[in-house]
Amino acid sequence: MPALPVRDLAALVGETNVLVGEASRPYLTDATEAEGVSGLADAIVRPPTAESAAAVVEWCYTRGIPIVPRGGGTGYAGGCVPQGGGVVLSTELLTRTRSLDPIHWCAQVEAGVTTRRLQTLARENGLYFPVDPGAAEQSHVGGNVATNAGGPHAFKYGVMRAWVTGLEVIFAPGGQVTKLGSSVRKDVAGYDLVSLLAGSEGTLGVITAVDVRMIPAVAARYPVVAFFSSLEAGVEAMDTTLASGTAPSALEYLDGPTTEMARRSFPKALPEGVVLTLIAEADGSPGEATAGRTALLEALSPESTGVYAPTAPGEIEALWRWREGIGIAVDAAYGGKVSEDIAVPLQALAAAIEATLCIGESHGLTACSWGHAGDGNLHSTFVFDRTDARAVKEAKIAAGDLFELAIELGGTISGEHGLGMLKNGWLRNQWSQEAVALQEGIKSLFDPKCLLNPGKKES
Amino acid sequence: MPALPVRDLAALVGETNVLVGEASRPYLTDATEAEGVSGLADAIVRPPTAESAAAVVEWCYTRGIPIVPRGGGTGYAGGCVPQGGGVVLSTELLTRTRSLDPIHWCAQVEAGVTTRRLQTLARENGLYFPVDPGAAEQSHVGGNVATNAGGPHAFKYGVMRAWVTGLEVIFAPGGQVTKLGSSVRKDVAGYDLVSLLAGSEGTLGVITAVDVRMIPAVAARYPVVAFFSSLEAGVEAMDTTLASGTAPSALEYLDGPTTEMARRSFPKALPEGVVLTLIAEADGSPGEATAGRTALLEALSPESTGVYAPTAPGEIEALWRWREGIGIAVDAAYGGKVSEDIAVPLQALAAAIEATLCIGESHGLTACSWGHAGDGNLHSTFVFDRTDARAVKEAKIAAGDLFELAIELGGTISGEHGLGMLKNGWLRNQWSQEAVALQEGIKSLFDPKCLLNPGKKES
Repeated sequence: MPALPVRDLAALVGETNVLVGEASRPYLTDATEAEGVSGLADAIVRPPTAESAAAVVEWCYTRGIPIVPRGGGTGYAGGCVPQGGGVVLSTELLTRTRSLDPIHWCAQVEAGVTTRRLQTLARENGLYFPVDPGAAEQSHVGGNVATNAGGPHAFKYGVMRAWVTGLEVIFAPGGQVTKLGSSVRKDVAGYDLVSLLAGSEGTLGVITAVDVRMIPAVAARYPVVAFFSSLEAGVEAMDTTLASGTAPSALEYLDGPTTEMARRSFPKALPEGVVLTLIAEADGSPGEATAGRTALLEALSPESTGVYAPTAPGEIEALWRWREGIGIAVDAAYGGKVSEDIAVPLQALAAAIEATLCIGESHGLTACSWGHAGDGNLHSTFVFDRTDARAVKEAKIAAGDLFELAIELGGTISGEHGLGMLKNGWLRNQWSQEAVALQEGIKSLFDPKCLLNPGKKES
Repeated sequence: MPALPVRDLAALVGETNVLVGEASRPYLTDATEAEGVSGLADAIVRPPTAESAAAVVEWCYTRGIPIVPRGGGTGYAGGCVPQGGGVVLSTELLTRTRSLDPIHWCAQVEAGVTTRRLQTLARENGLYFPVDPGAAEQSHVGGNVATNAGGPHAFKYGVMRAWVTGLEVIFAPGGQVTKLGSSVRKDVAGYDLVSLLAGSEGTLGVITAVDVRMIPAVAARYPVVAFFSSLEAGVEAMDTTLASGTAPSALEYLDGPTTEMARRSFPKALPEGVVLTLIAEADGSPGEATAGRTALLEALSPESTGVYAPTAPGEIEALWRWREGIGIAVDAAYGGKVSEDIAVPLQALAAAIEATLCIGESHGLTACSWGHAGDGNLHSTFVFDRTDARAVKEAKIAAGDLFELAIELGGTISGEHGLGMLKNGWLRNQWSQEAVALQEGIKSLFDPKCLLNPGKKES
């Protein structure tokens, strides 16, 4: 490919908003950087408006230049890593709150607004935006839609899609800014293109703004952490929790090895010999959350070897910060990791937790898992010394075994992170031939030249 | 078209499951029968299994014979009315509960299970399935997915799509039974084909089974009905309710004329001069629902001319039966009606309620509206004597004005019922050219011969 006429792009978005060479480096990877994933692009473009973003898409599409949409760059699947050329279209300058209506629980924000900013906006207006995929300071609302982001509170409140009523999107062939839906809360006039875009990982269109709905602020949230000395006891306690009549707002777990790796950063002393840690949370009005907390304590305590159930806001915050830091704690323990995000039917959760350890063992690797127990969503992980070439290679093979396991258990190869570039080619093992053909047909329909985030989410 | 070789179909599904002539009559219309909508089909086929349904689809598709999937036949848009030929594929014999796991809040039911049966199944197992589109005794779960059904409690709990984790579908070209998703609660591996099927009104595939999730049973629900003598006062009370910090489980309304038509069947005496009736409901644990009821009473009472807030289970049930019977009460008042289901952003609700009356007046028709206020979803209706040919004609023109209004207000021509055959051609006024082209491309991809429910949901 001849060198990109950068000057033309500068004319569309302003000179300071086209980055090349060294300045483009931070845009060439995502959270998989630690695993050595990084790419190449001819230029990074940061359109200051949706219209200029559309002009960039049109300019690229006409010239056959790949377009890699990029949000906060916090993905775990290499979904925004450019593969050898083209333009990275960063939405970081699209940061306006276009409208906010606290009375009617809705807002329209541009794609580059951070998840935290939206959460804060909601809170400041007496509302709650419950999607909490982690890395909220960095991740963008547009990226949250493009990956259909989850997080701990998806158990009660659903994933990103459940909170989106409309999208502003640039579809590639025409390079037009197109509106799908609006703040209207119900719409069955056409096929559900909003849902099709959600989780499409930038392969069908570029999202420039999002209409979200919210709910009234939740006054209180009380987490209960319980430790178990056997997987059976822990899973039984989880089933008791689910059968208690309470709907926890979150239901998380750490297996034994993960608990060990995160032990030192836990706010309190932990019992020894933990095989499973459960974190359940009750929320609602103060009375309701208190009653929920009691129900959780009743369900989780009897079989446990210890319980921690903070009620002070600072302690609760510290607990959730600890929970969010588990990935980092696991990183720190061995230096290298391959972490996947399979999800299985709830009946198969215990089997998947055990099988993760077995798969590790069969590859001579230390394994662990943690994640969103209530959603059957595991972050199954193999840890190793990054200088150990054999371990690095084995971990990638072991990840394949994990995907096969998830499929065998009737689950999915990705509950949260998407296929990105790391899971290309696996969907055809999970889906029927008919479904795969439809996925490929949809891609061709939306992106006939295959220039939108090429090499990603391939079946 | 030559006469259909009915014997071939009988070989696929059994002789008693192919109906022709007089026996096919009940399958040729839906809830729009009262408006004179009815069609023609060569045969009605009732496959007893998903596999035999697939054989029927394959048989028809190979021969170029239209297939009209049919659930309970309770739709309001003629979505399952056959248009002049082909086969109606009724899912009424697909009534098995294939699996039920109360501990893990999930079930797989066949498409012909009624909505009521699923609601009951949930209740009997300490769970709650909140989708309540009305006509629950007749409507089928498969049809609820195909139309992405709503109902009063969609305000808090979302529409049908929010409760579906997996589908068993027959895609036409291959006639294969294909599984999309499962009971797994989170899945971002492929494009969201489940959502694409939801609300596709039988034009993309035939749904034969549905994986649903549920939540723990809700112990108490307390409705509060309030009457207002001006639209302003009513809408202000609604805004106060939304700002109260309570999330009502339902937030319904009746305008003045609708209140009059439903007055006699209301459980109590109503005040005179009602311009707006609001029905809000608080649910949750007994304590929570009671607190919610208090908050609703505080928000709704001050400006109202009367309040009715029953707490006895029988009275609450009677109230909701009355609410569900509003359509029938309106039918009874004049004999004929044209009723649409536009939805608008909440900010525009009052404008849409008023404009409905104005549109009626401009066509010399009595108009009224009621519906799901919290979702901005109006059942805007023109009533008339069915023998008045002018009125019948004017009402259809007035419906067009309603659609234009919804689009102008940033809303949708259909919040619940879908396009069916009655709203064909209107989507292109609501959507951009790009989005319409994508909708048409998706239809061609899934159904290249255009044999799946032809003449429906046309943009």
